[in-house]
Amino acid sequence: MTIEWLNNPTRALDEGFKNAGLERQGQLTKPPGSLGRLEDIAVRLCAMQGQEKPALDQISINIFAGDHGVAASGVSAFPQEVTVQMVANFSAGGAAISVLAKSLGADLQVVDVGTVSDPGEMPGVISRRAGNGTANLHTEDAMTDEQLAIAMNAGRESVMRAQEMGADLYIGGDMGIGNTTPAAAIACALLEADPVALAGPGTGLDSEGVSHKAKVLGEALARYDDLSSAPLEVLRCLGGFEIAALAGAYLSCAQQGIPAVVDGYITTAAALVAIKLEPSVEDWLFFSHRSAEPGHKAMLDALQVAPLLDLGMRLGEGSGAASAVPTLRLACDLHNGMATFADAGVAEG
Amino acid sequence: MTIEWLNNPTRALDEGFKNAGLERQGQLTKPPGSLGRLEDIAVRLCAMQGQEKPALDQISINIFAGDHGVAASGVSAFPQEVTVQMVANFSAGGAAISVLAKSLGADLQVVDVGTVSDPGEMPGVISRRAGNGTANLHTEDAMTDEQLAIAMNAGRESVMRAQEMGADLYIGGDMGIGNTTPAAAIACALLEADPVALAGPGTGLDSEGVSHKAKVLGEALARYDDLSSAPLEVLRCLGGFEIAALAGAYLSCAQQGIPAVVDGYITTAAALVAIKLEPSVEDWLFFSHRSAEPGHKAMLDALQVAPLLDLGMRLGEGSGAASAVPTLRLACDLHNGMATFADAGVAEG
Repeated sequence: MTIEWLNNPTRALDEGFKNAGLERQGQLTKPPGSLGRLEDIAVRLCAMQGQEKPALDQISINIFAGDHGVAASGVSAFPQEVTVQMVANFSAGGAAISVLAKSLGADLQVVDVGTVSDPGEMPGVISRRAGNGTANLHTEDAMTDEQLAIAMNAGRESVMRAQEMGADLYIGGDMGIGNTTPAAAIACALLEADPVALAGPGTGLDSEGVSHKAKVLGEALARYDDLSSAPLEVLRCLGGFEIAALAGAYLSCAQQGIPAVVDGYITTAAALVAIKLEPSVEDWLFFSHRSAEPGHKAMLDALQVAPLLDLGMRLGEGSGAASAVPTLRLACDLHNGMATFADAGVAEG
Repeated sequence: MTIEWLNNPTRALDEGFKNAGLERQGQLTKPPGSLGRLEDIAVRLCAMQGQEKPALDQISINIFAGDHGVAASGVSAFPQEVTVQMVANFSAGGAAISVLAKSLGADLQVVDVGTVSDPGEMPGVISRRAGNGTANLHTEDAMTDEQLAIAMNAGRESVMRAQEMGADLYIGGDMGIGNTTPAAAIACALLEADPVALAGPGTGLDSEGVSHKAKVLGEALARYDDLSSAPLEVLRCLGGFEIAALAGAYLSCAQQGIPAVVDGYITTAAALVAIKLEPSVEDWLFFSHRSAEPGHKAMLDALQVAPLLDLGMRLGEGSGAASAVPTLRLACDLHNGMATFADAGVAEG
């Protein structure tokens, strides 16, 4: 299996609509710049959607679930069977992202890219399994070339599905017990950072657990020569199926011209891989929130992005990205609905 | 005219429902604490509303408009007539807060507490004028005792109106050209801070303008002995009609037991006065966003609160508070709608 779409070009932003958006912001009845980042959001969406009045009616949320061989090295506070149990919880509508999707009126799809055991058929769950979890990145490459391709293609396919249903916005999320370890491994490899600085508590490790995780990461990274300029190899050797799917999804969003909202730690690791593969992918991404996980800051700093929210969330499942959607929608409403100085007969400063 | 309700007691939070809320958060299908501040919001609302499942269906937004004699001392980039023009813009539905209120399905009331000229009758605008703007605080007390009472009573009345319509949440907002100067004056007086540190650009002063504003503030403050323990006198001498109305509104929200969302710089100055008068008022407040105005940080730090959003907004009109409402609503939805570990058959960590 190959990933022939990987080098397709990113869609260019529409500079004409960007400028029209900037001009409109300057005419609205408020001091220039006083809506802060809500102004930038609206203008970026004008450029992405090629519209004078951007809209975020239809939201597509896609959660990728996968398991991680590295769980055997004792890096998580939760047992590995929770990944499949949570897939069932997504399907039944009881998880945080299920509730958020309903509140936002968003479409929610769950893609099983390789949990440790096959959950079988479940409503709303698509099976694109690359294996029964990855190999243990502590001691061997996390996946084969073929597994990488299956996972990345699953991400692309979800974007194509979103496009077909007319989605104005794409959200990817992750579920995978142990997946802060591959996320940290990717960050360390691509940013040439120290595992001790980037290892965090994940879902609830104590300080001893964090030290052990850093040791596991250090040993994993030591098996490779410098990988900092080989993002696809970093993803294959140190990543996870859900992270590969998300990287494929962000690349595809940029190629297909669909704005995407990045969630927290795990999804930012995927976005970092995608941006290292093709820097213009970043044009199509909104970074939603700052995770409580320490390695997230390192990646955001490297990308020079400030996320919209900082609510101390660290759940994954796309929950931070979904939480930022109302902010994006209000930015559109203000841009589209406010009166201009001329409309309202208000004096300009 | 007196303000006899000023010393009414604050309603106590319901500790039973707070504990029930905390317990429920611990049972939801997520690692403990992983929804960050969304968990705190939900638990606080349980305690405020005395409910197991908090709700924010009905929102009451109240904008207080007033003018400021200190505008004559050249402290604003916009001309004073903009206050009345913006009242007309609120009434016509073209302002930022008009759009936000519509997006949130909120009720919007505008209260004229004393613009420089009487705008006359306008749909959705209530007239409670304490004067044709305040006196110039640069050279004299901003208002009389009677004017202070009229303005604070206007705030209280808006809370009573909100309660009558069954509001689950109260938002106050401000409109008043020049009102970052009284806000800074209040902050300086109550926090014993240096005007040079707290004077900011407001709606768009250049650095020369900011220096001039600091000078005006310094001269105004020099006319008084230490006022740091006399919040009501600070409000009368250095405040504005809309700030007094907002202080009255926050005190009333705490007395009537209605959760309130504080907006940005101006409303935080009002909240600071209310909290200095009665510290338990803070139990009933959510701080929505960090304004770009530098004096805001000083007050938030003094109150030891971290606002929910940091989007670089500096518009006023309650726009930051309104922007935080979706976050509060999602916190309720998650608290009320997620499955517990027992419901979902998910293993706890």
